[in-house]
Amino acid sequence: MLFHVHMVVSPPQGMDKDAFEKLRAAEKARAQELMKQGKWRHLWRIAGKYENFSVFDVKDASELHDILTSLPFFPFMKMDVTALCRHPSSIRDDDT
Amino acid sequence: MLFHVHMVVSPPQGMDKDAFEKLRAAEKARAQELMKQGKWRHLWRIAGKYENFSVFDVKDASELHDILTSLPFFPFMKMDVTALCRHPSSIRDDDT
Amino acid sequence: MLFHVHMVVSPPQGMDKDAFEKLRAAEKARAQELMKQGKWRHLWRIAGKYENFSVFDVKDASELHDILTSLPFFPFMKMDVTALCRHPSSIRDDDT
Amino acid sequence: MLFHVHMVVSPPQGMDKDAFEKLRAAEKARAQELMKQGKWRHLWRIAGKYENFSVFDVKDASELHDILTSLPFFPFMKMDVTALCRHPSSIRDDDT
Amino acid sequence: MLFHVHMVVSPPQGMDKDAFEKLRAAEKARAQELMKQGKWRHLWRIAGKYENFSVFDVKDASELHDILTSLPFFPFMKMDVTALCRHPSSIRDDDT
Amino acid sequence: MLFHVHMVVSPPQGMDKDAFEKLRAAEKARAQELMKQGKWRHLWRIAGKYENFSVFDVKDASELHDILTSLPFFPFMKMDVTALCRHPSSIRDDDT
Amino acid sequence: MLFHVHMVVSPPQGMDKDAFEKLRAAEKARAQELMKQGKWRHLWRIAGKYENFSVFDVKDASELHDILTSLPFFPFMKMDVTALCRHPSSIRDDDT
Amino acid sequence: MLFHVHMVVSPPQGMDKDAFEKLRAAEKARAQELMKQGKWRHLWRIAGKYENFSVFDVKDASELHDILTSLPFFPFMKMDVTALCRHPSSIRDDDT
Amino acid sequence: MLFHVHMVVSPPQGMDKDAFEKLRAAEKARAQELMKQGKWRHLWRIAGKYENFSVFDVKDASELHDILTSLPFFPFMKMDVTALCRHPSSIRDDDT
Amino acid sequence: MLFHVHMVVSPPQGMDKDAFEKLRAAEKARAQELMKQGKWRHLWRIAGKYENFSVFDVKDASELHDILTSLPFFPFMKMDVTALCRHPSSIRDDDT
Repeated sequence: MLFHVHMVVSPPQGMDKDAFEKLRAAEKARAQELMKQGKWRHLWRIAGKYENFSVFDVKDASELHDILTSLPFFPFMKMDVTALCRHPSSIRDDDT
Repeated sequence: MLFHVHMVVSPPQGMDKDAFEKLRAAEKARAQELMKQGKWRHLWRIAGKYENFSVFDVKDASELHDILTSLPFFPFMKMDVTALCRHPSSIRDDDT
Repeated sequence: MLFHVHMVVSPPQGMDKDAFEKLRAAEKARAQELMKQGKWRHLWRIAGKYENFSVFDVKDASELHDILTSLPFFPFMKMDVTALCRHPSSIRDDDT
Repeated sequence: MLFHVHMVVSPPQGMDKDAFEKLRAAEKARAQELMKQGKWRHLWRIAGKYENFSVFDVKDASELHDILTSLPFFPFMKMDVTALCRHPSSIRDDDT
Repeated sequence: MLFHVHMVVSPPQGMDKDAFEKLRAAEKARAQELMKQGKWRHLWRIAGKYENFSVFDVKDASELHDILTSLPFFPFMKMDVTALCRHPSSIRDDDT
Repeated sequence: MLFHVHMVVSPPQGMDKDAFEKLRAAEKARAQELMKQGKWRHLWRIAGKYENFSVFDVKDASELHDILTSLPFFPFMKMDVTALCRHPSSIRDDDT
Repeated sequence: MLFHVHMVVSPPQGMDKDAFEKLRAAEKARAQELMKQGKWRHLWRIAGKYENFSVFDVKDASELHDILTSLPFFPFMKMDVTALCRHPSSIRDDDT
Repeated sequence: MLFHVHMVVSPPQGMDKDAFEKLRAAEKARAQELMKQGKWRHLWRIAGKYENFSVFDVKDASELHDILTSLPFFPFMKMDVTALCRHPSSIRDDDT
Repeated sequence: MLFHVHMVVSPPQGMDKDAFEKLRAAEKARAQELMKQGKWRHLWRIAGKYENFSVFDVKDASELHDILTSLPFFPFMKMDVTALCRHPSSIRDDDT
Repeated sequence: MLFHVHMVVSPPQGMDKDAFEKLRAAEKARAQELMKQGKWRHLWRIAGKYENFSVFDVKDASELHDILTSLPFFPFMKMDVTALCRHPSSIRDDDT
């Protein structure tokens, strides 16, 4: 099942710079691992903001929840989740 | 350049059924033509709503505007456009 | 999979009374059919409003979309869909 | 009487980890006690968020208020309360 | 049980004047009947608006719903319902 | 003149418990004094929230302002004030 | 007592032009009569909008309500009413 | 030129009481100086809130900006600025 | 003085096509006349919407109001007006 | 490509005054460098606020993102980005 997720990051105020860079590296590593597994299908940055639009391909909402809450940045992110369906006008194989 | 577009359809009230079905067919044909050209990259339906999330791949904002305003459903849609960038964590070739 | 749906009804203005009562009866019949099938798990009215909170148990977002858009009242309803997960604190069998 | 409650948790910033885990355990224990008593009828997690939708079965608004404000997490939660009625289309015994 | 209700009236556009005056008289008669029964406890007009704040004293949310939806103006009103509790600081007998 | 006031309390973060209990006792004492004087006409708690709906009977907006800003909790409250009029449908003596 | 009123005009759609000009003239005449009486203290247009900010000097909220609802444009206006107090920093005699 | 300004004060948290009283005195002195110069035309307190509605008479937006940002309270205020025009229905000399 | 104006067009529903094209031509002619006079300094279309961002250079808010309300499309537009100042960091001559 | 950016500055609370002035000087220097390069086309202050409206002329959304996130004030700003198109009614050469 596909979910559209809008992630808004609020970087932790007062966190020391090294700790934050470590967190960022961990987030990136985890994101790429999920992409390689095919779970995190798309990831686009929103211009001018510390936000992204993502598409996840998971078994169900529970798997999605486990993935999102395990992200190193989760405590600093606000997520908006939207359940997607295949659109009858789409001709792309990978829109399902 | 990639743009994320959230389309919300408000079907024309009082339009006769045949006219509406014709319009719908024209919208679908035009959408598929744009997908074949690679301009309309993704199209997902939002569960429970007459809305979709789409991703367009165009030269610039003017090409996007011309495409969106030429859609048969344009007079009955509200569009929210967001400019996208490649995300440094993405490993997918087609997220650019 | 469980989905929480908030339905807001805007009764069609200017529809004649008999036609509306027929529509209402059709909506009720369809709702009860879906409850008997176990798809429409819960249905509660919101006090003072023409609105309800519902819980659906479906295979995925596509089945939910098909069910919701097939309701006789669909053209007169605004839907807000939220994907649910089992809560680790719940002890009720039927909260999954 | 049934009430629908939407709970949004904002975990206390700067609380030490052990203290937070204790609080979480106390919240879970209290929630399960209320479920066993039949007061807390349903509890579903909202995918991707530290939020839940719940249904309470209580004598009146005062009992609901006492229950909600006695939760260990209450100081860190925002609650939206909606009074529910039996829906005339529901065929489920436990929707009352 | 007490409920606070905020009623916002949108007078029916295009209704003929006599029909509207009849409706208004029926609304007033019904309101006063409910006040005499002690169900509609308070009714205040909001300055400069076609709106009111009311307090109802009813058995439960279902009785409230039946009362509100039976008002002659119901199809032209938006209602916001809030469940009230006795406040521990109140010394007034009739705030319960 | 009557005013409807919606008060939302945000308890002071990090205030020590005894200081807060003293503040709460002072707030309650002041509220009851104002009720005895007939200035604070009604006070109802909103179920599930640290909020109340109140009705004040004062000479004018200045007296209301002096009363509200003199409350011990004032620095921790957000107030929404609405000027009320007698409703022509009310039959209650004390709705003026 | 002083009240600040924000008036937003939505000119009646489909009203014939002469009828509208008559209504406009009646509104202007009534407004000037109220200004001469000193009830309508200030009237400023908001640049680029069919809206104004006004200040009324009336006995109480009921007199304000009667004045506002008697305006010829009332059925086509949305009003936001705010109760004002003399500001302790003001040195102008007519700010009371 | 006239501007309507809605000022919302958020008193600085944690500032010591004497420092705050000094700031308040400086704000009052500056406000009265601007009133004597005729720049700050009106100042009204909003009942129940730490907010005011003001009207300024300045040469242009730059003079307004310089005045507002030079107020001792500026770092603790949110301003909403609205450009005003003389209203054709006003008969007051000082509404220009 | 410079003003930033956000214009949102809602094309008149049900207007016949020729009448609308005439209106559109009149709007364009008037806009270009104002640009030649240097009053309408900038005009940009917002991608995907029937909206624009504009900058006007006028004597004061009254001249702006007269210009905006004289536009052929005015009855079908919602305007948001923001007063601008020269920015101390700008090095462009024409940002004043 | 042109982008309209609305920047809202929230000056860092508790930063020492010298550090803030240094940051401000760096922001100004960087802004002027970008203006000289023709990337930051327009910059206007919003009267009464620590906000500006800007227009950028960049190759694409990625260049815009790199520019905005490299601003010394970026961690203290909220940005709203809108993609612009040439307006068919514009006669100005530099509106493209």
